[in-house]
Amino acid sequence: MESQKFLLGIALAIVLVFSGASVYTHFVKAVPAPVDRETFYQVSTIDALMQGVDDGIQPVAELKKHGDFGIGTFDALDGEMIVLDGVVYQAKADGHIYQVADNLTTPFATVTYFDKDLTIITGQPMNLSVFSSVMGDRLPTGNMIYAVRMHATFPSMIVRAIPAQHKPYPTLAEASKNQSVYSYTDTTGTVIGFYTPVFFKGLDVVGYHLHFISDDRQTGGHILDFTVPANTTVEYDITPGFTMALPTSGDFTGVNLSQDQSRDLAKIEK
Amino acid sequence: MESQKFLLGIALAIVLVFSGASVYTHFVKAVPAPVDRETFYQVSTIDALMQGVDDGIQPVAELKKHGDFGIGTFDALDGEMIVLDGVVYQAKADGHIYQVADNLTTPFATVTYFDKDLTIITGQPMNLSVFSSVMGDRLPTGNMIYAVRMHATFPSMIVRAIPAQHKPYPTLAEASKNQSVYSYTDTTGTVIGFYTPVFFKGLDVVGYHLHFISDDRQTGGHILDFTVPANTTVEYDITPGFTMALPTSGDFTGVNLSQDQSRDLAKIEK
Repeated sequence: MESQKFLLGIALAIVLVFSGASVYTHFVKAVPAPVDRETFYQVSTIDALMQGVDDGIQPVAELKKHGDFGIGTFDALDGEMIVLDGVVYQAKADGHIYQVADNLTTPFATVTYFDKDLTIITGQPMNLSVFSSVMGDRLPTGNMIYAVRMHATFPSMIVRAIPAQHKPYPTLAEASKNQSVYSYTDTTGTVIGFYTPVFFKGLDVVGYHLHFISDDRQTGGHILDFTVPANTTVEYDITPGFTMALPTSGDFTGVNLSQDQSRDLAKIEK
Repeated sequence: MESQKFLLGIALAIVLVFSGASVYTHFVKAVPAPVDRETFYQVSTIDALMQGVDDGIQPVAELKKHGDFGIGTFDALDGEMIVLDGVVYQAKADGHIYQVADNLTTPFATVTYFDKDLTIITGQPMNLSVFSSVMGDRLPTGNMIYAVRMHATFPSMIVRAIPAQHKPYPTLAEASKNQSVYSYTDTTGTVIGFYTPVFFKGLDVVGYHLHFISDDRQTGGHILDFTVPANTTVEYDITPGFTMALPTSGDFTGVNLSQDQSRDLAKIEK
């Protein structure tokens, strides 16, 4: 009987070991499939935001599943979003930067996981207009989405942040008339944004769309202009995937998106 | 010893059962994370296809991971793609339908998983022009992507298929001059396609883009015109997610996508 108990003990031990292995294997295999790091993920469309579709539709917690790097805005157009190293910052119209709670929502945002594929050195100092043109022409192809990152001490950095709007929401053009503009000199920080191809018209800001946050995380916003110092390294993440989440309710479903709003957008964004 | 062998046998049996259960559980749990069934997945852009970017860039095997329902074309523009119930059909210019091998590639295709959200009854008989207009206006919102399915016996069905092209590839407008057109009467089958909103201009065929396949899987193609019989049920899958895979090499990177090609497209597609 002792030998029987001994064997039974071995049998149970074997069973437990196998069960344990099984649980461990489940743990390894049942984690969610890795996200596609080469996808540019977007909430809503820029033309909807232009029309005042400002209600947040996606919590920051969900947005962060799709990237650790990006830009956007918040519910009611309350400030400029900057996502860097997985932290979501809100540059508000009061000129300060806040880290945001996961339940804060966004009506428009764009994120990806930044994996550097390419660097281009700027050369001569450039303002935003020259940067957009020259550094657009120097991309391997204009028919691609790029995440853009540039760290430097900028001789000049002019950013804006729009204050929270109230319903009925105005158009972005109207809302931007009350934007706060801040100018900084010799500020060190990171430029964060994207380049999207011309066929993104209506969906996103075509070409370069850039936000800024200082190294001390005290200042930042949507870049209206800057001076990029000579020979600055611009890092690019080539992003051939695009995923967009359209709002299924709220103002989005009723708004007129058939007009070309690119001229109005250009006036506001730069 | 016999009892020892007996117990050892039980122990091994238990181990095997547990291992078996474990393997089974792995099978259940270790399948890839469920894809988002509410996403409209697209390979490349319609404007690239318009410009003759016809080299296949994605195998059908990969495309099928993103949907069991959809339309598109094949490498070198060789016929019209119809995906129904997970089977990929090729309507070739010879007027016949072929099931395709998983390694055949596509330069442009759009698929989703069809889950019916909505049905609309047509009313009066309609040709394609009337259908596109009336059934566009009757959607809950035009600012949404819908997968569209309609099964009926069509008094008239006119479809086209474009033959395989040769390099240097012509524009889609040029290639379509050699298309084969087939007219059928009282043919029973399924209309398969999508409705995309106006802000998809440049990316996809705005509005309705429909292909057809007969119940006997003998005839089909891109619909140039049809007669929808009275009171036909049109099924819609509301699809708020959009994912696009851009080509990272080949003709796509060099082609000029800055022109508005919607007029040329309208001439070809209907």
